[in-house]
Amino acid sequence: VDVIADSAQVALLAVPHTAALELAPALLARGLTVIDLSADYRLKDAAAYEAWYGVSHTSAELLASAVFGLPELDRTALPGAKLVACPGCYPTATVLAALPALESGSAAGTRIVVDAKSGVSGAGRSASPGTHYVSVNEAVAPYKVGSHRHTPEMEQALSEAAGHDISVIFAPHLVPMTRGLLSTVYIDVEDSFTAQEAVELYRGRYRKEPFVHVHEAGVMPSTAEVRGTNRASIGVTVDERTNTLIAACAIDNLGKGAAGQAVQCLNAVLGYPETEGFDRPGPVV
Amino acid sequence: VDVIADSAQVALLAVPHTAALELAPALLARGLTVIDLSADYRLKDAAAYEAWYGVSHTSAELLASAVFGLPELDRTALPGAKLVACPGCYPTATVLAALPALESGSAAGTRIVVDAKSGVSGAGRSASPGTHYVSVNEAVAPYKVGSHRHTPEMEQALSEAAGHDISVIFAPHLVPMTRGLLSTVYIDVEDSFTAQEAVELYRGRYRKEPFVHVHEAGVMPSTAEVRGTNRASIGVTVDERTNTLIAACAIDNLGKGAAGQAVQCLNAVLGYPETEGFDRPGPVV
Amino acid sequence: VDVIADSAQVALLAVPHTAALELAPALLARGLTVIDLSADYRLKDAAAYEAWYGVSHTSAELLASAVFGLPELDRTALPGAKLVACPGCYPTATVLAALPALESGSAAGTRIVVDAKSGVSGAGRSASPGTHYVSVNEAVAPYKVGSHRHTPEMEQALSEAAGHDISVIFAPHLVPMTRGLLSTVYIDVEDSFTAQEAVELYRGRYRKEPFVHVHEAGVMPSTAEVRGTNRASIGVTVDERTNTLIAACAIDNLGKGAAGQAVQCLNAVLGYPETEGFDRPGPVV
Amino acid sequence: VDVIADSAQVALLAVPHTAALELAPALLARGLTVIDLSADYRLKDAAAYEAWYGVSHTSAELLASAVFGLPELDRTALPGAKLVACPGCYPTATVLAALPALESGSAAGTRIVVDAKSGVSGAGRSASPGTHYVSVNEAVAPYKVGSHRHTPEMEQALSEAAGHDISVIFAPHLVPMTRGLLSTVYIDVEDSFTAQEAVELYRGRYRKEPFVHVHEAGVMPSTAEVRGTNRASIGVTVDERTNTLIAACAIDNLGKGAAGQAVQCLNAVLGYPETEGFDRPGPVV
Repeated sequence: VDVIADSAQVALLAVPHTAALELAPALLARGLTVIDLSADYRLKDAAAYEAWYGVSHTSAELLASAVFGLPELDRTALPGAKLVACPGCYPTATVLAALPALESGSAAGTRIVVDAKSGVSGAGRSASPGTHYVSVNEAVAPYKVGSHRHTPEMEQALSEAAGHDISVIFAPHLVPMTRGLLSTVYIDVEDSFTAQEAVELYRGRYRKEPFVHVHEAGVMPSTAEVRGTNRASIGVTVDERTNTLIAACAIDNLGKGAAGQAVQCLNAVLGYPETEGFDRPGPVV
Repeated sequence: VDVIADSAQVALLAVPHTAALELAPALLARGLTVIDLSADYRLKDAAAYEAWYGVSHTSAELLASAVFGLPELDRTALPGAKLVACPGCYPTATVLAALPALESGSAAGTRIVVDAKSGVSGAGRSASPGTHYVSVNEAVAPYKVGSHRHTPEMEQALSEAAGHDISVIFAPHLVPMTRGLLSTVYIDVEDSFTAQEAVELYRGRYRKEPFVHVHEAGVMPSTAEVRGTNRASIGVTVDERTNTLIAACAIDNLGKGAAGQAVQCLNAVLGYPETEGFDRPGPVV
Repeated sequence: VDVIADSAQVALLAVPHTAALELAPALLARGLTVIDLSADYRLKDAAAYEAWYGVSHTSAELLASAVFGLPELDRTALPGAKLVACPGCYPTATVLAALPALESGSAAGTRIVVDAKSGVSGAGRSASPGTHYVSVNEAVAPYKVGSHRHTPEMEQALSEAAGHDISVIFAPHLVPMTRGLLSTVYIDVEDSFTAQEAVELYRGRYRKEPFVHVHEAGVMPSTAEVRGTNRASIGVTVDERTNTLIAACAIDNLGKGAAGQAVQCLNAVLGYPETEGFDRPGPVV
Repeated sequence: VDVIADSAQVALLAVPHTAALELAPALLARGLTVIDLSADYRLKDAAAYEAWYGVSHTSAELLASAVFGLPELDRTALPGAKLVACPGCYPTATVLAALPALESGSAAGTRIVVDAKSGVSGAGRSASPGTHYVSVNEAVAPYKVGSHRHTPEMEQALSEAAGHDISVIFAPHLVPMTRGLLSTVYIDVEDSFTAQEAVELYRGRYRKEPFVHVHEAGVMPSTAEVRGTNRASIGVTVDERTNTLIAACAIDNLGKGAAGQAVQCLNAVLGYPETEGFDRPGPVV
């Protein structure tokens, strides 16, 4: 159990999944606000949690009031929130990549394909055969295809954005790098929707977001652009031959995909500017 | 111009696109068989070639008799062929990943999503800002999304396999490694089609192929498995929640994706076993 | 030519070797202080410059007053200096690694072996066959053994520290990483000198240095410790079997080895704390 | 315990240090020839073994007849040998780099500096914090400076070559790559000894060796040249300013540094050509 910060007001929880089931209620009972990086309060539906995580949800009464901690999706409930559930690294990049298309009604169907690529720090600090340098170097491979636990988070957030159910087809991949995550999404759009319109839609949607950059038409993001930051970098185009919007979002899985986002949420909860503290990043290993 | 081998019978051409437009007819006129690694004779439709490559096809009369050099797709025309057009690295991995689903009629639609990841040797030997170590290391990024020239090759081969037109939505990505290419394909399937059936379908289709391995259910391939070889390693599953078949194929882009395939085709043309010469691979840098 | 900053008072020069020969005098004539990252004013002896760089030194009259920009070696002449010649990346790490042993008289001989390992950003931004990802990845190799131009800088600085001539045997190596430089030095010491004494000597020498950390006995530095910073991390031991002091110094070749050091010198020249500006490092790619 | 091969005649032992102390006598008693990759029979002096490895040598009676398995040093005792002790990866590269200088009497002193750099596969297969991808990537660091157990092997072999005692000052380093080891050695030579003479000396010494290549003057080896092979690639020069011979030897730590050398020794023991079996290397991961 790793309570990153525990001031008089707020506890930042960086604990494994299921560990927050008991810890969060205890901290809330002490009057603290809880910013939770675990998966335990992300899904509104306790049954979905139990199905994907294989354990009973022992504090399901908190789910209704837990606020999903992705400010760019919806920050209205963050000020003063008592329990914030920060999304995982894959959902953060994926929701940011798909949100404008779904929210605006530009998307034509109810299913999206999500192909994501993550550096190895996303697999955690514990040493295992799979994180050995020799296993990772010069190797790209999918894992947990169709069964990764971040899937229902994406579906919940994107369904809310679209106003109707969205299914996510999700294949994560491990790539040989330390930090960085790129999510590429494929979304059906109407016949008349152009690449230029997509860029304008995305730029408009994120214009005021301090941590999101949308590239100009024809430019796609690289994970190198966001290393060591809380930023998300997005490129979008439409394959007009096939009426498919393709967007990619790059984040640092340890920044916007984890600790950075928690701090951004903390700021929003406490009424600080969301950018507070991000002008002095530490060195990046 | 790099004529790799020029025996009395066969010339292996490793030349840039458009260079084979004049070279191949000249070699054929001298009575040689031509195994061409360029793109110049891959597409049956000269107009498609001209649209994607931006140049006139000056030897279009050869297209009808050129044989597509992917033995696992169709090897019947290879023995004795005079002009073989070897597919590119992305089409090789992608067609192998999608072929059984399309050929068998298991696929439900007419569009497939192809998300591919390539090591840097796929970008060629020339030094450029994009191939500088510092640019590549710790960076994953898409490029030429929806506009990569390998797209029509994939569509041609997969449409032939399916018996009807197939559209390919294609996003290639560059990943920080020297060798290796992984293509992940997403194909709609009928409601009743299971992951287990998919594995059996793929294993059956490739049972006799000496260079193709299909993993058992639940196992996905890594580029590390095929480094320095002419092999293709495939994993397949069905996301039964969304009725989507997801298959991934790993190859060495310099092996099965290029020189290895040319040698395999050469063997087929001359009537040798396709595996001839592959028991003595050189060291792999 | 790249004048990084040109305020009313100071110009930071980041230009190739020989370009500062004309530029520095011109800027000085305009009343500016010049912080020069090139090699042009590092060597006090114009003949040595001409021998190692193969060009005439056309502003040798400035050499006597140029201040060597390694504050940890000697910062007395920096405040108010008009021309500061910042040392190269290899000399910075090497001098810091060897300085306490030579300065204190603990070293027994007049020759030291310097084996250094640098990441690829040290080779500059220009794309070449040698900086291609495929050339660098999975490759370690020495280059310019016994002939690297940083050798006379090291000898000049270390001779000054020792109070007598020191010869440097220098072999730089390229290793597959983006940033980071480690210099390992081998120095003969007297029979009675112990590893523990060496650690105490080094810790004492650098106690007040804000950017230098000396590890405790038995711990050696890694380039990962200093990535994205202006710090130098040092480990030292004595092989008591052979009476050899072995010290290693890790720096970020783009930080303490280049731009960071220039800013540190700028601070010293202007009378600011040397640490000014280093509490807000930008993100590290 | 991992007996790689156990035919009627020969057992190849790939076991951890100390495990061969009991295993080798047992196998010898069964009439087998033992090719041992462990350290247990490399040192002729049981006391030295006990001092460096911290355990009693329980089969010291075998040390006198054990043959050191570096054919390029001395292959005369290999044919028909009953117990062969293959050297470690560092001693193999180091002895090959230093041998001609010491054997010929060109070396002037009795001490040599050895600075070696190894890829991570040299640290073994077990997962640990130190072999985690995130620990290794973008990091170069020394370890076990002055205390690595391969030191006495080097001293024993080089003292035998020189005809008098040689002391080795040894600092190994870990570098971010999977395979490959480079050892750079620094040897004092007489004033009159030139770089050209050094190249000729080395080329002459290894002229007939099938697995050793000496580069021409001015060229240094890279680990990339020997990846996946049993070869050693050597470059040598003399820093004539300081009368120091600097030689570097690159090997694949899993080839000539381990399994490859065992097979080469096996061939020598059985009277086969030493190159037998090396024309069909498997693919290199």
